[in-house]
Order: sequence, then structure tokens, then C-alpha cells
Amino acid sequence: MTLRVGVIGGGQLARMMIVPAINLGLEIKVLAEAENSSAAQATTMVGDYTQYEVVEEFAKTVDVITFDHEHVPLGLLERLEANGISVQPPSRALAFAQNKLHMRHRLHDLGLPMPIWAEVRTLGDLQEFLNDNGGECILKTPIGGYDGKGVRVIRSVEDANDWLDAEFLASVGGVLLAEEKVEFVREVAQLSARRPSGEWMAWPLVQTTQQHGVCAEVVAPAPGSNAEALAKAAEIARQVAEGLGVTGVLAVEMFETPSGRLLINELAMRPHNSGHFSIEGSTTSQFEQHLRAVLDLPLGSTEPRAKWSVMVNLLGIDDQNDFVSQFETALAEHPTAKVHTYGKSARKGRKMGHVTVVSDDYSVAVDQANAAAQALLRG
Amino acid sequence: MTLRVGVIGGGQLARMMIVPAINLGLEIKVLAEAENSSAAQATTMVGDYTQYEVVEEFAKTVDVITFDHEHVPLGLLERLEANGISVQPPSRALAFAQNKLHMRHRLHDLGLPMPIWAEVRTLGDLQEFLNDNGGECILKTPIGGYDGKGVRVIRSVEDANDWLDAEFLASVGGVLLAEEKVEFVREVAQLSARRPSGEWMAWPLVQTTQQHGVCAEVVAPAPGSNAEALAKAAEIARQVAEGLGVTGVLAVEMFETPSGRLLINELAMRPHNSGHFSIEGSTTSQFEQHLRAVLDLPLGSTEPRAKWSVMVNLLGIDDQNDFVSQFETALAEHPTAKVHTYGKSARKGRKMGHVTVVSDDYSVAVDQANAAAQALLRG
Repeated sequence: MTLRVGVIGGGQLARMMIVPAINLGLEIKVLAEAENSSAAQATTMVGDYTQYEVVEEFAKTVDVITFDHEHVPLGLLERLEANGISVQPPSRALAFAQNKLHMRHRLHDLGLPMPIWAEVRTLGDLQEFLNDNGGECILKTPIGGYDGKGVRVIRSVEDANDWLDAEFLASVGGVLLAEEKVEFVREVAQLSARRPSGEWMAWPLVQTTQQHGVCAEVVAPAPGSNAEALAKAAEIARQVAEGLGVTGVLAVEMFETPSGRLLINELAMRPHNSGHFSIEGSTTSQFEQHLRAVLDLPLGSTEPRAKWSVMVNLLGIDDQNDFVSQFETALAEHPTAKVHTYGKSARKGRKMGHVTVVSDDYSVAVDQANAAAQALLRG
Repeated sequence: MTLRVGVIGGGQLARMMIVPAINLGLEIKVLAEAENSSAAQATTMVGDYTQYEVVEEFAKTVDVITFDHEHVPLGLLERLEANGISVQPPSRALAFAQNKLHMRHRLHDLGLPMPIWAEVRTLGDLQEFLNDNGGECILKTPIGGYDGKGVRVIRSVEDANDWLDAEFLASVGGVLLAEEKVEFVREVAQLSARRPSGEWMAWPLVQTTQQHGVCAEVVAPAPGSNAEALAKAAEIARQVAEGLGVTGVLAVEMFETPSGRLLINELAMRPHNSGHFSIEGSTTSQFEQHLRAVLDLPLGSTEPRAKWSVMVNLLGIDDQNDFVSQFETALAEHPTAKVHTYGKSARKGRKMGHVTVVSDDYSVAVDQANAAAQALLRG
């Protein structure tokens, strides 16, 4: 008996799914956009994931379709499902990941905590929202944004002139999403996974630190969060997973306010940067759990392997960046650092890899992970 | 910069090397004996590893050649080396792994502890050895043995009639190796790794349990061994690695006698079944360490991730054996078990996979690993 998972997209998330597939003895196939993607080792097809015929041909070679990214057109996925192909997470869940306004409406219906928000179609709408929220807000395009793209801080309606241009507005769905600029003490993320048949399991809440809108560091578990706070975060994630019908790994990114409230910022319905720590830091990594979940297999234990796990992203500093040539020095100086390289060509700001250190000593984990990342980026 | 490792042999050891190659961003290529080997995911060439031209063509596509097994003809490797190809471990080390008599002579010269042994060419030689050693001994073919093959308990010279037949004797090198049948309390194994430039690092000594000459269970660290005993075992391994010029991972299998002496039984110059626990149980797995070592990169930390790691082999019970069809039950019952399936067709007694459980509680690790293996084999 062979269980076959098909992943659409050849990025680092697909790459990191290859590892648990090898371990468990699952067959993994990747539909990549190009040769020599991060997931080349498992790429069985290169093609355009926006063309139904391409994706259908790929889907016929596997038992379930899942994703490296959330950009596959919803209509295409609905057609796959109508033709009897298992898509996990299903299109009805991905609809909320692909459109932040749909997501806000659904979370509102579920009574879940989030920033004050409104739909914005005109300068008047935006001015009203600014007036009601201290003259400042976050404006988002409902579709197409990621890693800080499609997100803007607005202090005057003029800041949004180009986005409220009729042509641009039409290209992002005809409407923008305004959100209050939350005064937060930190950002956190709650990872969990859910099987189609219902089993759900969470990892401990993590603290995430962003630089220029891109995740830079993750500390697991979120320092200073007590059992009550951890349970509250997990319960929010459970309600999102069940309420939106998510399967596989779900990341709920949240703001923590000075009073300890958690407000849902973004959702990702796939393994997520905030969960990379779990490769070494958890009994079951998010990549193994995702494969188990989308195949509707029992979920693994999410017990931590040590008190602290710290992950630091390796963000490209220029187009010459090359970690491998730094291995001699960096690995010698940091023997406990677990280095992950994504096999991507170098580019400033690009997620090129990450480093994780697990330790029962918080300072050791934080210091070693950051120092190892610096040593690898030095070149 | 890309570092490229070529592995000769497509078994489970090559398969498990793919994982750290993906993590570190190394390129791994496998020369397999057949399509659909355990290491098919990284197989770039299928061919006969006993043919020089085949291996040379493969070697030209990588920076270093290493091994899934120790069966590549020595003359072939010497020719590769003469042509400037990096072979790790080098032929001069593998010579000792391929011939148990050469190994015994070398260990003797190094003054290392081992069972009493002698060369046997005739029934007279064997009778003399039996007389001197309580009427019982272990007889081994110097070449070609593994997993209990090429090893026999002798209680009378008649037990060796077929092996002392001239034709058979010639096929195994013209001479047999007789060893005292050691009264041991248990078997242990010392894993370590060494770079060509000299750095050497060990994991803690492990306890191994064999069934029908095949490894069945490994407990890390070896229960009851105190710091002195662990240091002594590591020192033996260091002397073997340096004295024989081994690079990459080295497993030294030893008998522990009632008085606490360690006697060297077998050597393996590659990742070894006794080190599979390290995938989850150590900061650096034996497979990652092997890749680092053969590329002459700095070695990683071998700190344990928990107090105890227990690995149980999944040995095929018949030719219908199929772990994947047991996943629904076995994974649900054993959420902390890490399951490794090698993608091999089923056969009675064959190493089909393994299960590891790490825990700070000894009983939990032993019980869960064995119970999970039973659940996976049940089908």
C-alpha cells in the first residue's frame, strides 16, 4: 500500500515536506512552476498551476492534493473537487485564506477576537475609518498579499490614492480592507493541524518577530505566556480550524495587546514560517503533521523536545549570498545549530533558509540561533 | 556554491542520508543497483557498482564518493583515488572493513581489546583453536558476511567441513577467522564520526539486542554504563577511527563481559543500524554527521535530545508485510513513535523500517517503541 501526496508549488514548504514523506514512506510528488525549484528532489511535473488541465493531470497521479502556497485559483480547485479529487485544505476553507475580507466576515460570524475592521471602497469610507480610529489604520488588499506586500499603514486618505484608483481596485477585488492599527506588545502565532475526519491538535503558542513585514525570529513557546493564555490561544485556533473547515496545518497569527488580549491578524492554511521550529523542537514537525492530516492519518504528538526552540530566518543580504561557503566557519562555531538551506538563488530580503537551536536554557537558544544566522549570512 | 555527495548503493542508509542533504542544502546523488530502490528519490544513476566505468562516470558528477554498503571492490576504489576522486572512507580504511582478518591484525597491532582469535586454514588449525578455547568457537568468513551471514558457532570440527572445502575456502579468501565464543552480558556499539582533516566526535555508547543475528533493539545510552565505561568505549572508537584512517561514521560493535571489559566484535564504516536512534535522539543524526564528515565539514553536536532513545527494527514477518496499511491504528495508539519506512518490498526477516521513541523516562521509551513496532507489524 502506498499513500501518495501531491503538493502544488515548489517552494521551501514543499521542500520541507519531502523529509517526513521519506521518513514515513509516503510518496510525495510536487507540481513546480519551474525546474530547479526548492522542491526539485520531489518534482514530478513542471507546469502552470493556474491551468486546470495541468493540475488535473498532476492530481491523477496522487491520492490527495495539498499546497506549498495559497495562490491556486479557487474555481480550479472546486472543479477538481467536483471531479472527485481530494483537495486538503478544501476550496471552501481556502476561500477564506485567499480573501481577507471573506475571512474577516467569517471570523466575525464566529465571534472571534480581531482588530476593528471595515470595507473601504471610497476615499470617504477610508476617511470615516480614520476618524473613528485615531487617524491611523492598516489598509490591505483582500487578495494577493503576502510577507508585507498588499499591506500599508495609512495616516491620511492621500496615502491610499493609488489603491483607490478604479483600475487597481478592480484588480484586487473591488474593495479594500481597513483595520485598526493595533497597539500590540508583541506578535504571536498559534499553529495547529486538523484531519478531515475531525481530529485536531495544537503546538504551543509561539512569539514571532517581524522585520520589514517579514518573519525574522520565532521563539517557542511564547515567553511569559501562562497556561491560561496558552489555552486561550489554542482555543481560538480550534474555533478557526473548525469554523472555517480547515484541514492540514493552520497558522493563526495574532497581536497580543497590553491587556493580554489576542486579536487575529492573518491566517495561513499550510505549514508556516512560525512553525519551522517544530522540525527539531517538537516530537512531530509541522511538515509531518501536515502530511498526516491531509491524508487523514492520526496526528502525532506535539510535545516539545526541549523547553525552548528558537528559529531565525536566513534572509538574503544581496544576490551573492551563499550560506554553504560559510559552513566551515559557521558550523564549527555553532555545533548545536540546525541549518536549513532552501536551495534558492540569492536575493536581498529573500527567505533563503533558517536556523533552529533547541535548548532547556532560553538565553542559549536565543543567542546561539541568532549568532549562527549571523555567521551564515556573513559571506 | 554547491557541495555534492555521491552515495554508492541505494539501500535504507542512502535513503536516510537524503534527509540531512535536503536540510543542509547539499546535493545528494545515488548510484543504485536498480530502479525503485529505497533511495530512489535521490537516484541519478542505475548501474553495477563493481564496474569501474560505471562508478567513474557517477563519480564525475559529485565532489566526494561515499557508501551505503561496504561491498565496492577495493581495487576499483583505489583506481578512483588514483584518478583524483575523493573517496570517504578511503580504500585503505575500507580494506579493514572488507576483510575481518586484516581488521583483527590491525586491531592487534594497535593493542585494542578483542576476543581471542586465530587464522584457520585446516581442520587441524580449527581443532587446536577449539582445544584451547573450551571446545567452542565462532568461525567467520573474512569477507562477504553481514547480518549473521558468514558467521557460525562451531562445537566440533565437523561443523566446519563445508567451509574448509578447498573451493569454498578459496572463494572467501583462502582462510577463515576463528574467534573465542565470548561470555558476554550484553552487546554494545560505539558510534563516532571523523573528518579527513582529523576532527572526531562520538555519540554515547548504546546497547544493542540481536535476534537471529540481526539487530532488533537499540537503547541509547547503554543503561547502567557509568561515565568511566562510556569514556572507555569512546576511547576505543577513537583509536580505531584514527588507527584505521576511517572517515565518516564508524560503528564499533563490542561485547561487554561480566567483568566490564569491552571486546571489539565488528566494525562498520558507514551509518549503522545502531545509530538510527540519533535521527530523533541526538542534536546531530548519524546521517547528517556522515555527510558533514565525508565533505570535511565541521561536525555537529552529539548531545542527546532526551535522556533515553529506544529504536526497534521493523523486521518483515512475511512477504505481505505492509506497515502503511497499519498507520491508522498504530499511529493513533502511539502518537510519540517516530516511524521510518524504507520503501522496500516485504520479506520475512528483512529490515523494512524502524521506530524510535525518545523520552526522559526509560520505561516509556522502551515500552512505546516496542509496542509501536508490534502495532505496525500486526497486519
